[in-house]
Amino acid sequence: MFKNILIIGCGMIGSSILRGAISQKLCKNIYVLEKNIKYQNQIKKINKKIILINKLDKKLKNIDLVVISTPMSEYQKIIIKLNKNLSNNSLITDVGSTRENVAKLIKNHLSKKLKWIMCHPISGSEASGPKYGSKNLFKNKWCIIIKKRKNYLIEKKLSKFWEKLGSKVLFMNEQEHDKIFSVTSHLPHLIAYNLIKTAQDFQKTHKKSIVKYSAGGLRDFSRIAASNEIMWRDIFFSNKKNMSVIIDLFIKNLKSFKIDINKKRNSNLLEKLKKSKKVRQQILLLKQDISKPDFGREN
Amino acid sequence: MFKNILIIGCGMIGSSILRGAISQKLCKNIYVLEKNIKYQNQIKKINKKIILINKLDKKLKNIDLVVISTPMSEYQKIIIKLNKNLSNNSLITDVGSTRENVAKLIKNHLSKKLKWIMCHPISGSEASGPKYGSKNLFKNKWCIIIKKRKNYLIEKKLSKFWEKLGSKVLFMNEQEHDKIFSVTSHLPHLIAYNLIKTAQDFQKTHKKSIVKYSAGGLRDFSRIAASNEIMWRDIFFSNKKNMSVIIDLFIKNLKSFKIDINKKRNSNLLEKLKKSKKVRQQILLLKQDISKPDFGREN
Repeated sequence: MFKNILIIGCGMIGSSILRGAISQKLCKNIYVLEKNIKYQNQIKKINKKIILINKLDKKLKNIDLVVISTPMSEYQKIIIKLNKNLSNNSLITDVGSTRENVAKLIKNHLSKKLKWIMCHPISGSEASGPKYGSKNLFKNKWCIIIKKRKNYLIEKKLSKFWEKLGSKVLFMNEQEHDKIFSVTSHLPHLIAYNLIKTAQDFQKTHKKSIVKYSAGGLRDFSRIAASNEIMWRDIFFSNKKNMSVIIDLFIKNLKSFKIDINKKRNSNLLEKLKKSKKVRQQILLLKQDISKPDFGREN
Repeated sequence: MFKNILIIGCGMIGSSILRGAISQKLCKNIYVLEKNIKYQNQIKKINKKIILINKLDKKLKNIDLVVISTPMSEYQKIIIKLNKNLSNNSLITDVGSTRENVAKLIKNHLSKKLKWIMCHPISGSEASGPKYGSKNLFKNKWCIIIKKRKNYLIEKKLSKFWEKLGSKVLFMNEQEHDKIFSVTSHLPHLIAYNLIKTAQDFQKTHKKSIVKYSAGGLRDFSRIAASNEIMWRDIFFSNKKNMSVIIDLFIKNLKSFKIDINKKRNSNLLEKLKKSKKVRQQILLLKQDISKPDFGREN
């Protein structure tokens, strides 16, 4: 499919692409640029064919697909190097979780001779690092490709690449993407972080450890709030316009819940609690989760 | 351990006590009062020895342990019947998720001749109904017993009962209990409900289905928000004093996160995101969850 692929930043997502590309034979040679030494050692163990490089220089002339899977705050530095060293035929893609900010970066900084198609595979976990990667990470998961009118043919090629990795591909524009994921991903993560912060404040004020009792709900949020802080800082900053709107709606709704509770508005509260089950039913119908009840994970 | 046990309300929790009591041989006879006909049929299948009754009347004279596991909004009606029909030697317990409200109910309505020790097993899931019960539900999970000075001996007996069901028993008073669980359980549930409500509002405004993209975080919250609405209405109403305080703290913290994001306060935000990992580490250390990353549950 490609002759030479370069993966820049090889954590959990990057190394999953790496593993999938090798296993599906999507390229002849695969190069990796990863600066974390611990990660380098883990990557070497994945496959003997992997060529680790330590800088973006003229040797990159023969690369035909660059996959950037670093935190988004590193993109600008990388673009400067790519402008200098990539040949005009190479395609660039990335897997960042927000797209309007990267669209701007590309417009303002990428050499006009180069092509960059933004992607976003909707998969992952709270874990970081190549040892958590898997060639099956993308299997049956959505991958969003950001559509531009003029890019039809290379989008089609990239779409096939993701399908070979197991993804189901969907096209949308960057504005739509950032709006939707502010609700389905970015707000839930912020809320999880905020809940843990609130529990920590409570512990401090009451000088009492409460995590012992976390099985009733807090535990599940703590998992989400253990996600990589650099990646999430970048996402929150990049999508601050949509985040701001959705945080305000969340606070408005929470205040309304508080009033329902304080005034014991029975039918109001019951109706809201019942209604939320509908979303769960849709999620199960769309096979985004399984219906088996979760009693907590066992060792 | 007991001669005759009566379980009033036999959903997931009640039927788990039922199963555990039979399996551990904690009583000679076991009676169940459950008004839901579908549930009755499921209960009959659990064991032939179970004696289903349909009202609380004088035949209860020989019961020595009553376990109430209905929603808390039914307690008052039940107390009136128990006052009339139980003998003075019987012990009453329940498994409600808030304790100050029930302490008041007991004080104001329970006959002085009867003894009621409040318990709260910290286990469960979003599922409802006896078919989801299990004799292992309480295994290695905390069970809180609300301590009163004068009840030492019967608390000890009840503590053994829970230990036989697999629980690790802890004692505390009702004020402490309601405060702690407002943070570790009640707020997380309200937040999950509120997040789903916010996503529903977004869908309505944007006329766009977003659940398809729920794998990035929303999915996990939707599971929690699929919990039984009657049970959670009762909990929120019963613990409204503590809920109000912790909701305010949550909103204050969320507004501060919003400012950090909008003003791109890098070190503030990073420090908070990093700090929340500590709670996760404590939770894993205390074996309240496993460290294996969660990539979403597969069929």
